[in-house]
Amino acid sequence: MRSTLLSRRDLEFLLYEWLAVEDLTRRPRFSDHSRQTFDAVLELSEQLATRYFATHNKLNDAHEPTFDGETVTIIPEVRTALTAFADAGMVGATMDADLGGAQLPAAVAQAAFAWFHAANPGTSAYPLLTIGNANLLIAHADEELVRRFVQPMLEGRYFGTMCLSEPQAGSSLADIVTRAEPRDDGTYRVFGTKMWISGGDHELGDNIVHLVLAKIPGGPAGTKGISLFVVPRYLVNEDGSRGERNDVALAGLNHKMGFRGTVNTVLNFGEGRWTPDGSPGAVGYLVGAPHQGLKYMFHMMNEARSGVGLVAAALGYTGYLESLEYARDRPQGRTKGAADPASPQRPIIEHADVKRMLLAQKSYAEGGLALVLYCARLIDEQRTADSDDERRALTLLLDILTPIAKSWPSQWCLTANDLAIQVLGGYGYTREYNVEQHYRDNRLNPIHEGTHGIQGLDLLGRKVTQQSGASLRELDTRIRETLAAARELGGETADLADRLDASWSRLVAVTGGLFAAGNVEVALANSSVYLEAFGHHVVAWIWLAQTVTAHGRDGDFYDGKRHAARYFFRHELPRTGPQLDLLADLDTTTLDMRENWF
Amino acid sequence: MRSTLLSRRDLEFLLYEWLAVEDLTRRPRFSDHSRQTFDAVLELSEQLATRYFATHNKLNDAHEPTFDGETVTIIPEVRTALTAFADAGMVGATMDADLGGAQLPAAVAQAAFAWFHAANPGTSAYPLLTIGNANLLIAHADEELVRRFVQPMLEGRYFGTMCLSEPQAGSSLADIVTRAEPRDDGTYRVFGTKMWISGGDHELGDNIVHLVLAKIPGGPAGTKGISLFVVPRYLVNEDGSRGERNDVALAGLNHKMGFRGTVNTVLNFGEGRWTPDGSPGAVGYLVGAPHQGLKYMFHMMNEARSGVGLVAAALGYTGYLESLEYARDRPQGRTKGAADPASPQRPIIEHADVKRMLLAQKSYAEGGLALVLYCARLIDEQRTADSDDERRALTLLLDILTPIAKSWPSQWCLTANDLAIQVLGGYGYTREYNVEQHYRDNRLNPIHEGTHGIQGLDLLGRKVTQQSGASLRELDTRIRETLAAARELGGETADLADRLDASWSRLVAVTGGLFAAGNVEVALANSSVYLEAFGHHVVAWIWLAQTVTAHGRDGDFYDGKRHAARYFFRHELPRTGPQLDLLADLDTTTLDMRENWF
Repeated sequence: MRSTLLSRRDLEFLLYEWLAVEDLTRRPRFSDHSRQTFDAVLELSEQLATRYFATHNKLNDAHEPTFDGETVTIIPEVRTALTAFADAGMVGATMDADLGGAQLPAAVAQAAFAWFHAANPGTSAYPLLTIGNANLLIAHADEELVRRFVQPMLEGRYFGTMCLSEPQAGSSLADIVTRAEPRDDGTYRVFGTKMWISGGDHELGDNIVHLVLAKIPGGPAGTKGISLFVVPRYLVNEDGSRGERNDVALAGLNHKMGFRGTVNTVLNFGEGRWTPDGSPGAVGYLVGAPHQGLKYMFHMMNEARSGVGLVAAALGYTGYLESLEYARDRPQGRTKGAADPASPQRPIIEHADVKRMLLAQKSYAEGGLALVLYCARLIDEQRTADSDDERRALTLLLDILTPIAKSWPSQWCLTANDLAIQVLGGYGYTREYNVEQHYRDNRLNPIHEGTHGIQGLDLLGRKVTQQSGASLRELDTRIRETLAAARELGGETADLADRLDASWSRLVAVTGGLFAAGNVEVALANSSVYLEAFGHHVVAWIWLAQTVTAHGRDGDFYDGKRHAARYFFRHELPRTGPQLDLLADLDTTTLDMRENWF
Repeated sequence: MRSTLLSRRDLEFLLYEWLAVEDLTRRPRFSDHSRQTFDAVLELSEQLATRYFATHNKLNDAHEPTFDGETVTIIPEVRTALTAFADAGMVGATMDADLGGAQLPAAVAQAAFAWFHAANPGTSAYPLLTIGNANLLIAHADEELVRRFVQPMLEGRYFGTMCLSEPQAGSSLADIVTRAEPRDDGTYRVFGTKMWISGGDHELGDNIVHLVLAKIPGGPAGTKGISLFVVPRYLVNEDGSRGERNDVALAGLNHKMGFRGTVNTVLNFGEGRWTPDGSPGAVGYLVGAPHQGLKYMFHMMNEARSGVGLVAAALGYTGYLESLEYARDRPQGRTKGAADPASPQRPIIEHADVKRMLLAQKSYAEGGLALVLYCARLIDEQRTADSDDERRALTLLLDILTPIAKSWPSQWCLTANDLAIQVLGGYGYTREYNVEQHYRDNRLNPIHEGTHGIQGLDLLGRKVTQQSGASLRELDTRIRETLAAARELGGETADLADRLDASWSRLVAVTGGLFAAGNVEVALANSSVYLEAFGHHVVAWIWLAQTVTAHGRDGDFYDGKRHAARYFFRHELPRTGPQLDLLADLDTTTLDMRENWF
């Protein structure tokens, strides 16, 4: 039976035919790898995801973690799955071999992780947060912290969290008030409340390593005074054994619409509950230098935000495949010209409007996954670049693509899940099928790791303008390379290139116009509209690039790629026309609205 | 404290200033009414909705109905609320006085019902289904059936259902297989399984009156052989007392993503469980003539589908008001030019992107509610028309507006709920706030009472073309009346009229082009795209009409109406440009997709 989690055929196309990840094995970092080792990881991931993760996705949703005031209880299937994940070496998939990692390219690892997200995003969140945490420590913490905290993460014994938000400070991290007081021994004592902490408290492993943003008293105001600390749930002794409980207390759980399998917590640091001797304060270890915490966090942001896009794309993908399977099997109604009620009903996949809903999903899910894997490939190139110039160019490109890789799948693969429900009709609205859960789970993605609005401000207010537009020029260069390749092929592919060229050139021109007037408030008034228009152009480019790869290859799979690209260029890209009109007009409807008029 | 269910000020504007419902009191049917009686009903509805319905909306969602194999259990707050609703005479709000009804205009009654839907759609569904059921019986059943079954509904003792779908026949009613065998005494015995029956089994009243579509053996195939039957849960004795249990058995409950408060059932008719004497078959009474069942059902469809639109709009509205309240209260970040981190954070309503999300919600929620109330006003005119010509014209207008009144709020007020979540950010994603429930509840509306796709086929394949385009011409006339009125006012209002004129004229021209080629399959290939483009034009017209009414009136409320109209014309109506391009091109991307290419 074909999996309805992801399409292995499409993954192979994206990785080997389009992104040519085998070429990466010529670089020293990946030289121990080959198509065979990549395939083995993908195969194993599909198996583990299918056997250990997909099997409790619904259970996880129906039986969310509970807290009795002492202990968080999570259904036992989660621990079994996480053990299988860690035992397969997946936590260290992309990490250095000398740390015990597999040193896989990010592109391959992301494709592998996609199986787990599609199968069970609630359970997959635990190791994925842990990986992000470990990567940050590897990049910025000293060897001792890495040895003590990262090593057990690779073994699946420790889990990690990211503690940024506070009840009064979500999008506005400048306003965090958690403080870290220095002690003579070089450690800190952390006091404050952190909000929305996924995986903040549980008994799934031996320890939880919190990465906490806090301010050292006397430092600069705002974001420039933020430092980063490791605050473990349990202190760790010199020999690696578990020490005393640290002063981190679970204040309560948040109960979400979806992603219910991931325990989401409010944590109190330093309330004194776990330090009965009367000296409260959670023991924290400074990561890197003081006041550089936000920089470290944002250093990881490209990967973290692409990771959100990956989850969104994986959920869009599995919803697409599930609704496709349903549409093939469900007879309902007749096609035009065969309306005789005595004739048998036809599978709904034959109805034009159902094809529309499936084509849209295909274009969103495959487009979103391709975009995220493309970014992962860039990360691999960046990490192994031959020169500073090359690395700088790749960084610029990743900078501008990251808000798209985060926001576009979060928006459109959620739309895909909405369409999956619609294909299933009344059945899709019930908890007897999976698609309603995908829709609830995926709704988180436009919120966390920087909301949709924050991505828009990041793109237009920072990435597009940085270094006098260097990121935008870098992307423009890449797009024009694809346009040139497409035009060489002639025919329909060249025609698609012409369409993208016209629309993209207009977007670039409109971008210049936004800032020409010199009014930043007006320029940013429609930053979300800009984000969405930009995103659709990027994904049109991704579809064009896939079409170039598919050129001259025969068979249903390639015909499907070509037709999904056609759909995207005919039904989707034109949506950006009115968006660009608004931006070109420097529309101020939102700014002009007054609070009293609501 | 201002209500976050609906805006009484807006209801007053829509009903009295825009729709001039007071004028209806000059018609004999409504001559006992006045502004005072209308106000009293609206006031009472707000109070009852706030006190009895809103208070258990979350409880209803968290504790959905359960079935232990014998009895359906529903939280007791539901019964209390329904008793209050019936005691206030709301079930018979629009019904004839000689049946015990209040003979209110539908426009006023719909506005009153909107309070209940906004407060608790799960609980409100019981009386609203009952009202639809009663209206159908009043229109098509004989006096005896009305006396026996409708009268107790008005008193709140009986509830009603609509039993159309079957497991193998949802959108395709031609394929129902439930059969009704005639007996010598004029009654029938009904056998079959009905799916998705809301309110199909419960102990909220003395009886449940199922309206069941079934086929009498030997009748025509397809939809032409469908008849309609009253099948009560309990038989009713001559004197009105409750008789034996009828052979209707609950096969199971459906567990939905939202609308959890409304028990949703699979019912088996005639399985013999409740006729231990060995003579199975549920006793049914034919409504009207044989084989006319679908006609009767569709006779009620204009009201039922507008009713879905009303629920969708009410949920969009309350989500808008809740997110508006949150945005006024939640400090987060600073506006441009005041980025000093030492300055206090500003309420998020001051951020341009939050204003955008609130403005969009305002335009969707107020636009959707206005559209549905406009249709209700047409129903009032139709019911009290002076001439057949007038009635015919109103029927044509209602025919073409109904798929829009159903589909547009279902799509865009769900989008509003999505934006409400986004305004609240992480908080909006939790069950501690209401907006996530609205989003789940509202997701039902594009599915039931004819899916979005069915509405598109109904609009383009039936309504637009019927009587050589008579419905479209009728709507065109109405729109042009508003355009003329707007132009007379000059200034910005005239400018909006010009924009709508240009776009609407193009839509009408494109519509002609769709059928000019003579290929129905191609003409209907993008019927959902057509539905959405058409809907945005209709709502742009509704916004223009409101602007005409608001012309020359000062104050925040009217400024808000004008600015929401501006938003709709600048940000929303232009979305239809690319849709009309597709339709003008007779795009066949969906038709050309082959099953094997997915």
